[in-house]
Amino acid sequence: MGASGLVGEQFLKILDEQAFPMQELRLFASSRSAGKTILFQNQPLLIEELTETTFQTNAFDVALFSAGGDVSKHFAPLAKQSGALVIDNSSAWRMDPHVPLVVPEVNPEDIFLHQGIIANPNCSTIQAVVALKAVHVLFGLERITYATYQAVSGSGYKGILDLERNEQGLDSQFYPHPIQHNIIPQIDSFLDTFETGEERKMRQETKKILHLHDAYIHATCIRVPVVNGHTVVVHVQCKQPVNRIQIIAKWNQDSSIVYLETPNYPTPLQVSGQDKVYIGRLVVDPSDPTFISFITVADNIRKGAATNAIQIAQTYFSGGLR
Amino acid sequence: MGASGLVGEQFLKILDEQAFPMQELRLFASSRSAGKTILFQNQPLLIEELTETTFQTNAFDVALFSAGGDVSKHFAPLAKQSGALVIDNSSAWRMDPHVPLVVPEVNPEDIFLHQGIIANPNCSTIQAVVALKAVHVLFGLERITYATYQAVSGSGYKGILDLERNEQGLDSQFYPHPIQHNIIPQIDSFLDTFETGEERKMRQETKKILHLHDAYIHATCIRVPVVNGHTVVVHVQCKQPVNRIQIIAKWNQDSSIVYLETPNYPTPLQVSGQDKVYIGRLVVDPSDPTFISFITVADNIRKGAATNAIQIAQTYFSGGLR
Repeated sequence: MGASGLVGEQFLKILDEQAFPMQELRLFASSRSAGKTILFQNQPLLIEELTETTFQTNAFDVALFSAGGDVSKHFAPLAKQSGALVIDNSSAWRMDPHVPLVVPEVNPEDIFLHQGIIANPNCSTIQAVVALKAVHVLFGLERITYATYQAVSGSGYKGILDLERNEQGLDSQFYPHPIQHNIIPQIDSFLDTFETGEERKMRQETKKILHLHDAYIHATCIRVPVVNGHTVVVHVQCKQPVNRIQIIAKWNQDSSIVYLETPNYPTPLQVSGQDKVYIGRLVVDPSDPTFISFITVADNIRKGAATNAIQIAQTYFSGGLR
Repeated sequence: MGASGLVGEQFLKILDEQAFPMQELRLFASSRSAGKTILFQNQPLLIEELTETTFQTNAFDVALFSAGGDVSKHFAPLAKQSGALVIDNSSAWRMDPHVPLVVPEVNPEDIFLHQGIIANPNCSTIQAVVALKAVHVLFGLERITYATYQAVSGSGYKGILDLERNEQGLDSQFYPHPIQHNIIPQIDSFLDTFETGEERKMRQETKKILHLHDAYIHATCIRVPVVNGHTVVVHVQCKQPVNRIQIIAKWNQDSSIVYLETPNYPTPLQVSGQDKVYIGRLVVDPSDPTFISFITVADNIRKGAATNAIQIAQTYFSGGLR
C-alpha cells in the first residue's frame, strides 16, 4: 500500500534487487493513483485501489504499508485480521505496546513477539540506533542528544518538488518557508511540550528499540536543502569512560555499518542510494572521557524506510536472527 | 585591514549606517587588492597595501583586522606598538590570556582589561553566548552541546562562489566536497583530538566569554548550503530545574535578542542582513526539567563578525557598559 509514493517505489526496487521470494506481488494506492501501471521486472503491474473489501477477498502473507498514519490506522487491523503480517512504515503503531518496533541489526528478537503488526521506525531514528547499539553494549547510554539534518525526500515527492520549485524562483507550496538556501527547524507539527512530532518520535522510539529504561533522550530536528540522505549529529553521555578504538572495532564488525575514520567522513551525496549506515567524526570529549560525539549518514528512503521494512520481512521469514 | 573581503565590506556598511565618529578612515588589504577603490559615503577610497612601515608612519586610534590569522599574528603587535587599539576578527589572539574576547552584550567589562588587542569571537560562538547568558544567570550552566548549521558566507567569497559553481553544474574549488544539495561535516582543519579547529574554538571561546570554570562544552560543526546566516542548535544541562517563562522574559529584556515563540521560529533567510540574535524553539525536556534546547540564528557576517567588532569599539569609546 502506497505503491506510487517515494518509499513505495523503493520497495519495488529493493524487492527486485534482493530477488525477494514471492508468488505474487500486488500494488495498492489511493483512488488517485489507482489504474496506473508500474513496471516490475519488465512486467507492467496495475495499481489497485485499497478498499474495505481488499483483505476480505485476498489472502496475503505480508502487507507493506507506506501511505501515512491515517491509512495504516484504518487498514492495518483489517490486513492483520485476514492473516497477513503487516509491516508498517507510518508512525501510527510504533508506540503501541503490542507492536514491535524493529531495526533488524539492533533488536531482531522483537520481531517474533509480533501480534500481526510490526512497525518500521522513523528514518532518523533507524540510522542513529544502528550506531548507538555498540556504544550501549560497551559503555552504557546515560543521555543521548540528537540534532538532525534531514533531506527533503523525507517529505516524499512534495518535499523534492518544493526544493525544485524554489530553485526555479518559485514559492514553496508544501513547506511553510523557502527550503533552498535555508533551513527549517520544524519537521511534523508542534506538540504541547513545544517539541515537534518528529522530535518526540526520536526520543520515544530510541528508548523502545534499544530497551532503554533510564536514559534521557532529546532531539532537535531540522530540514536542510539536501535532496536525499539524512545526517544525525549524535552526542552521548556514557555510563563509563569510553575507549574510542573499541567502539570503532565494534562498528567495523557490523556488516551494515561503514565507519569512515577522520579525516574522511560520509556526506549525504555519497550515501544516497546505499543501504548501509555510514558513521564518521567520532570524538571523545577532551575534558570528559565519558562523553562522545559522532555523525551518522544514511539514505532515508532506503535504510530509513524501504530497506529496513524488507529486512524485517526477510529476518522473519528466514526464521531467525542473522 | 582586509577591506576587500566579505567582512571588510560589512565593516564599511556598518560604519556608515551607524555614523561611527571618525576623522579619517583608511583601507588596507594585501598587495592583491591594493590599488582598487571602494565607495564610502559616495567618496572613492583607495585600498592601500599593509606593510611593515604602515604603523610607523601613521597614528591610528583603532585598527580593525579581518584578513586571517597569519596577517593578524604578524601585524597586530605592530599596530598595538604604535598606540592603536586593535580589534581582531581572526582566531590568532582569542585564547591569549592577555587578550579579552568580547561580546558586548555578554562580557563588556572585559573590554577595559585590554592591553592593546581585543579579540572578536568566532561567528557561531557569538550568537550562542548571547542566548546562553540569560540561562547562565538564571539557572547555571553544567553542560552545553552545540550542533551548527553554518552558511557558506562563513568561508568568505570563496564559499559563496563554490555554492554558485555547484549550482551551475561545476565542481567545488574551495570545499573538499560539493556543498549544493549536501552538507559537509568539517569546518577548519582536524586536530589530534579528532575535533575540527572550529569545534575547539566553540568549546574554548564559550568558556572564556562566559567565564565558565566547571562547565563541559562540546561542539559538532557542519557546513550547509545556505548563503548567509548561521544556525546553532544548543542543548543545555542546567544546574537547576528551569522555568521556561523566566528565560524567555530575560531574553525579551535584551534589545539585541529577538525571541520568536513556537509555532514561529527564525530561519537564516529571514535573519540575513540583521544585527540581532534570533532565538526560537525553546523546549524544556519532558522527562528532565534541568535540560533545555533552543536554536539561535544570526547573520554571521554582521553580528558574527563586523557588527560585533564595531560594537566593541563603540562600547570602548563611549567609556562604559550599555
